[in-house]
Amino acid sequence: MSKIIVDMMGSDLGCKATLEGVTLFKKEHPDCELVLVGKKEEIGEGTGCRIIEANDVVPMNAGALQVIRMKESSMYKAIQAVNEEKADGVVSAGGTGAFLSGCALILKKIPGITRPALVTQFPTLIEGKKTVLLDCGASTENTPEELVSFGLMGKLYAEAICGAKDPEVYLVANGTEEGKGSVVGKEAYKLMKETKLYNFKGNIESKEVLNGTADVLVADGFTGNVLLKTVEGVAKFMGKNLKKIYKSNLKTKIGYLCVKKEMGGFLKMMDPKQTGGALLCGVNGVAVKAHGNSDGFAFFRTLVLAYELIKANVVEEIKKGVNPSE
Amino acid sequence: MSKIIVDMMGSDLGCKATLEGVTLFKKEHPDCELVLVGKKEEIGEGTGCRIIEANDVVPMNAGALQVIRMKESSMYKAIQAVNEEKADGVVSAGGTGAFLSGCALILKKIPGITRPALVTQFPTLIEGKKTVLLDCGASTENTPEELVSFGLMGKLYAEAICGAKDPEVYLVANGTEEGKGSVVGKEAYKLMKETKLYNFKGNIESKEVLNGTADVLVADGFTGNVLLKTVEGVAKFMGKNLKKIYKSNLKTKIGYLCVKKEMGGFLKMMDPKQTGGALLCGVNGVAVKAHGNSDGFAFFRTLVLAYELIKANVVEEIKKGVNPSE
Repeated sequence: MSKIIVDMMGSDLGCKATLEGVTLFKKEHPDCELVLVGKKEEIGEGTGCRIIEANDVVPMNAGALQVIRMKESSMYKAIQAVNEEKADGVVSAGGTGAFLSGCALILKKIPGITRPALVTQFPTLIEGKKTVLLDCGASTENTPEELVSFGLMGKLYAEAICGAKDPEVYLVANGTEEGKGSVVGKEAYKLMKETKLYNFKGNIESKEVLNGTADVLVADGFTGNVLLKTVEGVAKFMGKNLKKIYKSNLKTKIGYLCVKKEMGGFLKMMDPKQTGGALLCGVNGVAVKAHGNSDGFAFFRTLVLAYELIKANVVEEIKKGVNPSE
Repeated sequence: MSKIIVDMMGSDLGCKATLEGVTLFKKEHPDCELVLVGKKEEIGEGTGCRIIEANDVVPMNAGALQVIRMKESSMYKAIQAVNEEKADGVVSAGGTGAFLSGCALILKKIPGITRPALVTQFPTLIEGKKTVLLDCGASTENTPEELVSFGLMGKLYAEAICGAKDPEVYLVANGTEEGKGSVVGKEAYKLMKETKLYNFKGNIESKEVLNGTADVLVADGFTGNVLLKTVEGVAKFMGKNLKKIYKSNLKTKIGYLCVKKEMGGFLKMMDPKQTGGALLCGVNGVAVKAHGNSDGFAFFRTLVLAYELIKANVVEEIKKGVNPSE
């Protein structure tokens, strides 16, 4: 039976959102044990889950080390409980910096990984093919060597989660030729070209990220974060414009009714809430970061993601891939 | 009468695309003089425009200084001709690095500007409001001081071209709080907070770039380039998916007919070809860079953009704004 520890206090919307997410998840996956960490009086008895009491909340903009000092916080106690409870994973909607450093210090990094990375997946133009992006924002800056290891973690993630065979790894750059890229990217390119760890295919421009060319996109945490949030922003912009178009007049309203089913599926695919957060790849445990502004549904989807990552044994696969001799 | 010098040889698609663009433009703007620079036998006599012969082509991936050594190239001669012909501007679809350094060295930078920037505009959710982004890729890395001056050029551009009043300037970052941002961005934030040159509003996340919050988005050239190309990529992805949806079955085909007009206008707005390139802001002259893969229509739109920038007197406005005492 899988066991996930849930930081109930991290979301901007407070316990209401996380509680709703937990309730939705339990209905769908009664076979998975959830242990909830937070204020007992806010969580209540309704979920039927065990509660670990924690009365402090790590502030959203907490410095990377602040969580370590806040030993009574829901985030600290939740991460800690992964070890104590021998759980498979932990989910939090709290601040990224705090969650990253908390997981790295308490769960420990996988040997061989110097810097964990947030990983997410995009849909692409190729039916059924997903593209994996990392780092989506665990770091603000990275070394070339860290980018090289992101490529390896991305490859292992794509194999374990997206069913990719011999995944093609690309570096996000401002042009496709060698010699393009950020200062760090250019150095990483040289190292990745020589690596035997994975199938490095060179640079890719961000206009290609959704067309299914790449299995894995590697970027430093700042660039990856801007890329991910631009995708979200444009998708939202297009969705709002489509709504406006359909509401224009009677004819367009009829037009909407004719495509409602197909359009609904598509807009759902593009909704960041469906994605449900990102895995912090490179630590001992399935540590999943939900959006800070997660509502109940988004938090539910994050729990589902964590559950799927556990089922796919992603952490073990990464450990084995990074340390093949062990 | 406005006069624009046109590098006919820069596009990936060669003279065919630029010729088509020139022909479309001349039909619409017979009052604007175009001087075409390139291979006489390829340009031919059909356009009725004066031709300056140039038989070399600067390679797309040319080093920044290579153009200066290629004195017989169409790009060099075109930029040179702005001075010699007392023209208002120059348009090229050639390599960004070569065009940037050619313009900076031949047209000279506006006093007070250490680094020119490529500027483009986005549509936003607010009807009629455009958001200006710079730098879209003239540089790969920038200093904090350069980002500060991008803010000023962006403000002046937004006033001259987008009709913005007291434009609100934001820094693109991985979070909205002070203390977020790239290493260079954090330093720039401190300087921009103190500036009296424009209305600095702080950090903005890239998921907000199309919602009309900002008049001006400032980013280093690498980040701006990734952002711009992600917008293009997602727009293309959504467009292709919409087409697929409409082609699904008879009902969806009817659905398409009901929204054809409104949808056409929207997809047109999102088409990068409509935007027609980006102004290289900060040099003496309207220097407009077209996409390297411009087809005839995209090149036409670039010529229209150059024409509009000339009519709006954007270079004089920037000169005055940067050096108010002169």
